[in-house]
Amino acid sequence: MPDIKPYPITRSLIPENQESPIHFLSAAITPEPYFFRRNHFPYPAITGESFLLPVSGEVMRPLTFHSQDLLRMPSKEIAVVMECSGNNRSRFQPEVYGEQWEGGAVSQGVWRGVPLRDLLKWTGLSAEAKEIVFEGTDSGKRTGQEGTFTFARSLPLDKALHPDTIIAYELNGKPIPFEHGYPLRLIVPQWYAMASVKWLRKITAIRHHFQGPFQESDYMYFPEKNSDEGKTPVTAIHVNSIIQQPINYSVLKAGTHRIHGLAWTGNGRITTVEVSTDGGKRWEQATIQGTRDPYGWVTWTYAWAAFEQGDYTLMSKAADSAGFIQPAEARWNRKGYGYNAYSTVNVKIE
Amino acid sequence: MPDIKPYPITRSLIPENQESPIHFLSAAITPEPYFFRRNHFPYPAITGESFLLPVSGEVMRPLTFHSQDLLRMPSKEIAVVMECSGNNRSRFQPEVYGEQWEGGAVSQGVWRGVPLRDLLKWTGLSAEAKEIVFEGTDSGKRTGQEGTFTFARSLPLDKALHPDTIIAYELNGKPIPFEHGYPLRLIVPQWYAMASVKWLRKITAIRHHFQGPFQESDYMYFPEKNSDEGKTPVTAIHVNSIIQQPINYSVLKAGTHRIHGLAWTGNGRITTVEVSTDGGKRWEQATIQGTRDPYGWVTWTYAWAAFEQGDYTLMSKAADSAGFIQPAEARWNRKGYGYNAYSTVNVKIE
Repeated sequence: MPDIKPYPITRSLIPENQESPIHFLSAAITPEPYFFRRNHFPYPAITGESFLLPVSGEVMRPLTFHSQDLLRMPSKEIAVVMECSGNNRSRFQPEVYGEQWEGGAVSQGVWRGVPLRDLLKWTGLSAEAKEIVFEGTDSGKRTGQEGTFTFARSLPLDKALHPDTIIAYELNGKPIPFEHGYPLRLIVPQWYAMASVKWLRKITAIRHHFQGPFQESDYMYFPEKNSDEGKTPVTAIHVNSIIQQPINYSVLKAGTHRIHGLAWTGNGRITTVEVSTDGGKRWEQATIQGTRDPYGWVTWTYAWAAFEQGDYTLMSKAADSAGFIQPAEARWNRKGYGYNAYSTVNVKIE
Repeated sequence: MPDIKPYPITRSLIPENQESPIHFLSAAITPEPYFFRRNHFPYPAITGESFLLPVSGEVMRPLTFHSQDLLRMPSKEIAVVMECSGNNRSRFQPEVYGEQWEGGAVSQGVWRGVPLRDLLKWTGLSAEAKEIVFEGTDSGKRTGQEGTFTFARSLPLDKALHPDTIIAYELNGKPIPFEHGYPLRLIVPQWYAMASVKWLRKITAIRHHFQGPFQESDYMYFPEKNSDEGKTPVTAIHVNSIIQQPINYSVLKAGTHRIHGLAWTGNGRITTVEVSTDGGKRWEQATIQGTRDPYGWVTWTYAWAAFEQGDYTLMSKAADSAGFIQPAEARWNRKGYGYNAYSTVNVKIE
């Protein structure tokens, strides 16, 4: 008998961009083969230098850590929802360019590592330090720009020094898989995943605002089509939910059906998930299950008594403890980031 | 370094429905792991009976063939485009229920088998025979109907007796993989793939018109939303083409780009493929490459000189020797079969 299983969904091969088959996964932790992959460049080469992590710039004592050093330091393990800020980009209207992610550019893993603040205790920070820059090992060309670029991003001090911003070396109890940043990856809980720099090879404290293309050109909300007016940086994950099952445009028999899915946020915790089975007119509370890790997603379920034949539009809407509620429409922006409108599924009861 | 490869695209697990990652495949023959899978029921069990093929009904001498018997008979090998009639269903507007196939419910394989007409020479056909019914081993429930159904379909005599309608036992030089119908599968070139019954376990000549649910309820074009008026059966594949690369909503740098894809038809052969880079105003001939198997697809390519920045809508349009041309819009039908509008891809040159 065949081994039936879902597969990642390929968006591009070079660089490798593959989506998680999220509708078909039930484990709270995304199994590694299904963890979404999002790259800006071809995979980098691993060399001896990949295991060294220099910390320099506006610090008192520049130091280079070896990845082995980190293994000996006190560590913490954190369950984190990692969501690509382009997740659901394909749903924006009007359409926007870029990887046409559907709902699977989000996964959950348990990361183990050392808080960045603990490393910085060894180096100290100068009083002028304003941001910390994180540089990956991956580099290459950018469409429409001359030269070669390295994937690099900065964090403001408060986020960089947060006790849960870690330099991770393990995912789900094993060394981080190469595709996800081996040997060291910055993990920034609550922010979209571009902040969690893979193949981390350099940390630099700076006294100004960092302006790399992955911070000033990409990963910026541009609300206008033809001007850069009103741009703001992509940071915390918007409150979001997804209906995993049933599948869109499926035909079900009359009876009770379990509508279930996931919900997560980058601001506080998920407090409620509501479900509508009539296209958003009436909403009912779904039952939130699963873990309540501070940075994790929740699973939710709703028993739908569907005894009447007809066409139905199912929706889910999450709210978080910071007061954010999923909107009926996502805020359009030219590069298609931060989509978080209601999850919508059409089904027919036969 | 990681092994980067595309994967099938999961539409459902039970029954297993997986799409081919067609945009990322370049071989003329679809590698077996990427051959699309479309099932109506959970996979059937293989038993001793699976290797027997009784031919009865309106025949002179009912006979049961063993699959080993077929291996000893004269055989032929045919390259065949197999397209699910629901391919591209997700593109119909208004949307229709059913598996939301995008463009990958089509694959090409080389099938080896014995012409059905050769088997029927042993049994003879009675003068009253009007259709031949093919029964698979797969069975199960249907939404909205009572009872258990077996996947079964009929062919009119002329198609059943066509010398290239074969009872196949090999795909690409190997025994047919279980998921694709092992040990015996009916192969009906030029018709949509529902006609090519998998796990073939019974052939019956009948004197009337066969009316199974996979013939009278499914696989029927219903042009009206709320009535069955004007229904016609799904048979030959509509002339079709796909732009494999570039990918929709990708951003390319200024320069010459290769637009390439596939084209196929169930009526005659592909004669031309045209490409538009301005949303359908002007059309240019693409170069047709690859094999010219009578039932195979062609690969085509077009060198696009894209030196001006801007947004472009690329389209492909195929025509066949029977006079059919891909239309700008597919003919809507309630169950979403036979989609064959131009393949359309939006790209930005930066």
